Amino acid sequence: MSTEFELIARLKPLLPTSARVVVGAGDDCAVLDLGEPGMQGLFKTDAVVEGVHFTADVAPERVGHKALGRCLSDIAAMGGEPTAAVITLALPGLDPDAEAAWALRAYEGLTALAARWGVAVVGGETTRNPAALLLSVALLGRVPAGKALLRTGSCVGDAIFVSGELGGSLTGRHLDFEPRLAEGRWLRETGRVHALLDVSDGLAGDLPHLLNPLGTMGAVLYKSALPISRAARLAARTGDLAKPAHLAALTDGEDFELLFTVAPRDAVAVMDGWRERFPGVPLSCIGRVTATAGVRLRDEHGERPLTARGFDHFAKLPAGTASAN
Amino acid sequence: MSTEFELIARLKPLLPTSARVVVGAGDDCAVLDLGEPGMQGLFKTDAVVEGVHFTADVAPERVGHKALGRCLSDIAAMGGEPTAAVITLALPGLDPDAEAAWALRAYEGLTALAARWGVAVVGGETTRNPAALLLSVALLGRVPAGKALLRTGSCVGDAIFVSGELGGSLTGRHLDFEPRLAEGRWLRETGRVHALLDVSDGLAGDLPHLLNPLGTMGAVLYKSALPISRAARLAARTGDLAKPAHLAALTDGEDFELLFTVAPRDAVAVMDGWRERFPGVPLSCIGRVTATAGVRLRDEHGERPLTARGFDHFAKLPAGTASAN
Repeated sequence: MSTEFELIARLKPLLPTSARVVVGAGDDCAVLDLGEPGMQGLFKTDAVVEGVHFTADVAPERVGHKALGRCLSDIAAMGGEPTAAVITLALPGLDPDAEAAWALRAYEGLTALAARWGVAVVGGETTRNPAALLLSVALLGRVPAGKALLRTGSCVGDAIFVSGELGGSLTGRHLDFEPRLAEGRWLRETGRVHALLDVSDGLAGDLPHLLNPLGTMGAVLYKSALPISRAARLAARTGDLAKPAHLAALTDGEDFELLFTVAPRDAVAVMDGWRERFPGVPLSCIGRVTATAGVRLRDEHGERPLTARGFDHFAKLPAGTASAN
Repeated sequence: MSTEFELIARLKPLLPTSARVVVGAGDDCAVLDLGEPGMQGLFKTDAVVEGVHFTADVAPERVGHKALGRCLSDIAAMGGEPTAAVITLALPGLDPDAEAAWALRAYEGLTALAARWGVAVVGGETTRNPAALLLSVALLGRVPAGKALLRTGSCVGDAIFVSGELGGSLTGRHLDFEPRLAEGRWLRETGRVHALLDVSDGLAGDLPHLLNPLGTMGAVLYKSALPISRAARLAARTGDLAKPAHLAALTDGEDFELLFTVAPRDAVAVMDGWRERFPGVPLSCIGRVTATAGVRLRDEHGERPLTARGFDHFAKLPAGTASAN
């Protein structure tokens, strides 16, 4: 039982449920019946930890922004609207004045983002944590009943889309990204999206979560269509990771972009509508859902299985761990 | 800005609010309008950290129980009903197998308590935390609209009640306590409670939070009426803290009992109703609200100001820091 995934797989059957639970653990947010007529509630928690999700030299405002931004990205991935958050702030307690100053600046970043999206911050808990600063956010949201964009629902033949650009996020974007709330909501309102998630563990790691039921479908990705970020291209030329840019786009993680499937007949309408509504945000059709299990990458040499693994926080992947071989 | 209280005081004005917020940060839970007709939502987060709220030798099931129990106690303190929780689990990552086994056992304790109170556990986040195990819980609940038991509302002359027994919780009860959800709900339904909170930082530390607006009222406590726990009495005789039992009852913290005020004319009815409904749970009238600011302790020698400070997690108080002098 050595990996996080194995642990989660063993924890999930333990979780008690109730008649209020529409979608429990396993999607980007839980979906709950909270009694609001015509609406359902969304509920999510996420944490950032010093040395894991940010380094000690990062401006605290950016850490606060990231802490809430990650949860907002999960609300976006349901096509929802965020409403209220509570925060847990854990400080080492070694230098109370410096840590209090850090906390105030982190809250400034967090609350600026909250205010921009109409999120009320309604409580917090402050505690001590021996060796690391930690910010945990729990976020509530809402979505029209039955309309949440889930990870299930893809069909064989669907077109696969991704917003923005992928790869290289750790050079800076992971601390400053604006969650795709407007885009997620618009996608829900089109009524054309089959399944959607936000890419946080890398495209190659997260795409299989859209291919449910597992084993009944797979995907082919077009290498030439991958929207590779400038940061990933720069890192491929100058960085020390020696990772080709398209592999960075497939595996880097922390992208916080929307990955979704639509029926082929709706692909052009979604693309045209998106370009009109969000002219500054790229939208790329990067592949399609197939009847063969597994993810394959197509390039000028043909199709090969993609044995990619997702991004495992800041653990440096050995070159070739994620590779199209 | 060296204390947690000063930090919180500086953070609170930063928090964005919205039309959904009925009661924001500062009460036991936030109270929100979540759109359910006739009802309001409750929202709370709390965390337990190894070395701060529990020691490494404690059975993991008890840690999980405590992590959720603390939040449930806050729902109880609003007279509410808990509905759904999300969990953040942070593990050091030094011994993945042992930590995964610890996590499973902690979840067993947490989910057993959740199932007993109808709480659905609808999601979780697993992350790494360098030096300590950490469990953070965010909990949703509900209460009839306008009926939540707040910390405000006490009147001069009110009788002050506390449930259960106080002091010595750290000898074991803080890991096993059953949250007073049934009692909190019953108290709300009586319609007679003016203000209520759950005692987590010690009676002397928490009582002033019921005396609002600050400075316009105070309280006198009857030393002989304090319900001193057997654990506190034993510790006073045999422990190494050399703290008189009544001081333990005033300052030990982690009691998770309900402290509340009612009009003098309702005191007997509340006491009688409680004894009939909860014959196994003591209820003590320990004092009254006065028109003089500050808390005073009355004993056979007269009344003296109580310069008590609340319990500050596991920081060992020097003898006499909290004292009736």
